[in-house]
Amino acid sequence: EVALQKPCADSKPSNKSKGGKFVLKCPKGMRDYTPDQMAVRELVFDKIKKCFKKHGAVQIDTPVMELKEILTGKYGEDSKLIYELEDQGGEILALRYDLTVPFARYVAMKKIKNIKRYQIARVYRRDNPAMTKGRYREFYQCDIDFAGEYERMLTDTECVKLVCDILQELDMNNFTVKVNHRKILDGIFEHCGVPEDNFRPICSAVDKLDKESWEDVKKEMVETKGLDPAVADKIGVLVQKKGQFDLIEELEKSDLGENKSAAAGLSDMRLLLEYCELFGCLDKVSFDLSLARGLDYYTGTIYEAVLAPDAKGENVGSVAGGGRYDELVGMFAPKGRSIPCVGVSIGIERLFTIMEKKLQECRTSSIQVLVASGQKGLLKERMKLLNMLWDNDINAEMLYKANPKLLTQFQHAETERIPLVAIIGESELQEGKVKLRDTATKEEKLVDRASFVEEARSLLLNCGS
Amino acid sequence: EVALQKPCADSKPSNKSKGGKFVLKCPKGMRDYTPDQMAVRELVFDKIKKCFKKHGAVQIDTPVMELKEILTGKYGEDSKLIYELEDQGGEILALRYDLTVPFARYVAMKKIKNIKRYQIARVYRRDNPAMTKGRYREFYQCDIDFAGEYERMLTDTECVKLVCDILQELDMNNFTVKVNHRKILDGIFEHCGVPEDNFRPICSAVDKLDKESWEDVKKEMVETKGLDPAVADKIGVLVQKKGQFDLIEELEKSDLGENKSAAAGLSDMRLLLEYCELFGCLDKVSFDLSLARGLDYYTGTIYEAVLAPDAKGENVGSVAGGGRYDELVGMFAPKGRSIPCVGVSIGIERLFTIMEKKLQECRTSSIQVLVASGQKGLLKERMKLLNMLWDNDINAEMLYKANPKLLTQFQHAETERIPLVAIIGESELQEGKVKLRDTATKEEKLVDRASFVEEARSLLLNCGS
Repeated sequence: EVALQKPCADSKPSNKSKGGKFVLKCPKGMRDYTPDQMAVRELVFDKIKKCFKKHGAVQIDTPVMELKEILTGKYGEDSKLIYELEDQGGEILALRYDLTVPFARYVAMKKIKNIKRYQIARVYRRDNPAMTKGRYREFYQCDIDFAGEYERMLTDTECVKLVCDILQELDMNNFTVKVNHRKILDGIFEHCGVPEDNFRPICSAVDKLDKESWEDVKKEMVETKGLDPAVADKIGVLVQKKGQFDLIEELEKSDLGENKSAAAGLSDMRLLLEYCELFGCLDKVSFDLSLARGLDYYTGTIYEAVLAPDAKGENVGSVAGGGRYDELVGMFAPKGRSIPCVGVSIGIERLFTIMEKKLQECRTSSIQVLVASGQKGLLKERMKLLNMLWDNDINAEMLYKANPKLLTQFQHAETERIPLVAIIGESELQEGKVKLRDTATKEEKLVDRASFVEEARSLLLNCGS
Repeated sequence: EVALQKPCADSKPSNKSKGGKFVLKCPKGMRDYTPDQMAVRELVFDKIKKCFKKHGAVQIDTPVMELKEILTGKYGEDSKLIYELEDQGGEILALRYDLTVPFARYVAMKKIKNIKRYQIARVYRRDNPAMTKGRYREFYQCDIDFAGEYERMLTDTECVKLVCDILQELDMNNFTVKVNHRKILDGIFEHCGVPEDNFRPICSAVDKLDKESWEDVKKEMVETKGLDPAVADKIGVLVQKKGQFDLIEELEKSDLGENKSAAAGLSDMRLLLEYCELFGCLDKVSFDLSLARGLDYYTGTIYEAVLAPDAKGENVGSVAGGGRYDELVGMFAPKGRSIPCVGVSIGIERLFTIMEKKLQECRTSSIQVLVASGQKGLLKERMKLLNMLWDNDINAEMLYKANPKLLTQFQHAETERIPLVAIIGESELQEGKVKLRDTATKEEKLVDRASFVEEARSLLLNCGS
């Protein structure tokens, strides 16, 4: 009998290897995907790929490793989380930390002028894993990026539209895409009197506003990062604002509007909101000054999509994030010639977790017909019938036993939700017939062997399989 | 203008990183996949997955890393090719070398009694790369394995059938699946007088018969492995035989037939051939005594599929291989309780190379409609039209320029083979119309804006896109 998995309820297995006793496990922070999880994963990937293709993106892939120097100096203090390989007498290699830096390396190396590309691949971080919260050391990222010199804000808006498309495709309709602009944040810092070399540290503090109170964030600014409390208060009033066109107008009319950087950012934001309106997704977008994003390399628009708390009030947090990074390719390109880029990364592991809960009924077996017999000695006859189905591109199997009981075979069809059972016995063989049994209704139908494949096909249509 | 890739003809790029000068490249023996290559890869994967699903296999995935001790003692002298990670104060990890050992670890760890599983994933070998020959340090493996106690030879035959299915699905119809049995080889060695501790080394020598002459193989047996030349000659006569039922009969009637191990193997082979006949693939199968397979862990049937030399006489060699390994899971299982396994690995990188040559015309862009205008100031109108297409699940794009020339847009549609262009100008807007242009025939049709999505859809059906 073929079943998917029959784990016993035993305790942890352990075993002796040549080197002594060891526990049978995956590396810390990593996991196997079971067939059920893979079925969910494939479904989510297919839906996301469909959206990417709708926007004309092409797919690339890069090695799981990069020369260590490619990754050096790109991730700030997170660099300590990079997995390094042993130098075995060759190059010094490290596992990729994200897909953005390898993409920038790819664009620079191949001297690409423009590309809309997506990439779905695993990345590696030696972080403290919190597997129950879906935080792993090995996890998928799913990125789309637009590289090239384009008309202002068009591709930025398309990133927002794509996030909306993907979440709606996954039936997650209750979400907000927060948008902000690095130039507005820099304008605010300048306007409020933050010294320029403290812009990025203060920006990182602002980024924590989605998890911490303003009081805690202010404390970090003042106590850890040495900011004047009065300056922090001025920032606090501004970064807690959110809105849409109304907020843009308010800020443009305020003193901040005279700051050159802020004014440029606000003009971009207006265009972004206008374009979102054209794309029918303005209702999902919130211009939110508290959004800052952790990474240093963003230079313009930034986004983050958050799901509304679920029925139990549980907050899954951010499910997509990204922004514009116009200088990263230049770090690799000869003569530092850069290519403007904007992109968004889908937080696929969180989406898997949500979809796994939704799709607990997701069927993993693809089998449409089980070939069965209740009589002994018909193994070869079952194989012949099975082969007829395979040769007609129908997904089929039989139990790998010489003489299984008919009841066992019916039970297997029910457990595995195989819609149809094709049954043969001596009498069917003599008369050139096959009996087709609908697993759900238990209805049986005797059909000619010559037309049995076609009969099965049309019954399968009715089974909705 | 959005194009896929525009590599210039410049020489190698190099750049200064913070640490000094370095060449912009992938790690040795590894490569990026371009959009064209990814399109081929996806196509091949889809066809293979279709075959796996036809046989009811479910998919799993495992981490790219394993605890080093899991891999220790499984690969013989190839262990030196394993990539090890730096010990950064935690577990000692290594990158997976194949998918078979992680699968055995998975089955043992989850105490699975039976499973038909497939896995498509990258593996890592610090081998001397020969990238022009398609030999990389990072490459895909594509494995299907049957674990469980089943009726003799059923799953073994299904592996052969699957290989035939897959190669035929890929339109590679000119191939042979060589089959042999470790028990027959062991019987031959015993019968000819090879000392038992020399079975595996002599087996490795036999395995080279597909690349080397018998003289060279004999030399290795005698000079390197210390075999009596008379014993080697007796082996030589036997292992150069191939056939089908005829060969089985010949061997059974010969002295070898009295060897217990050989007799058991020959009985298995007869059943395998009989079952292959039932599955309609006997004409592809050759019982070939020179097939030995490198890996130590095989215990029964072994296979290898080879393509016939192509039109230029070029030999791509083996495109699939596998066998029965009944003891491997037991190396991990508590109390050493093993689960019989048989499986086959598709040599996907070689298939990619062949398919890339065949499919040079493979289209990478999925775009069905390009939204265009020849007049200035219609950016927002183009966006509105684009959004109508997206919202109706039609793959569409526009050039990311405010005022591109109409000719540039037509050229883009031709280059990217976008079947349809939707054109608007002031007059179309005023009259509530859209002009649809077939890129291939250049025929144009003016349609109502209200029905333009439906019109586009029906024209796309005719374009065959």
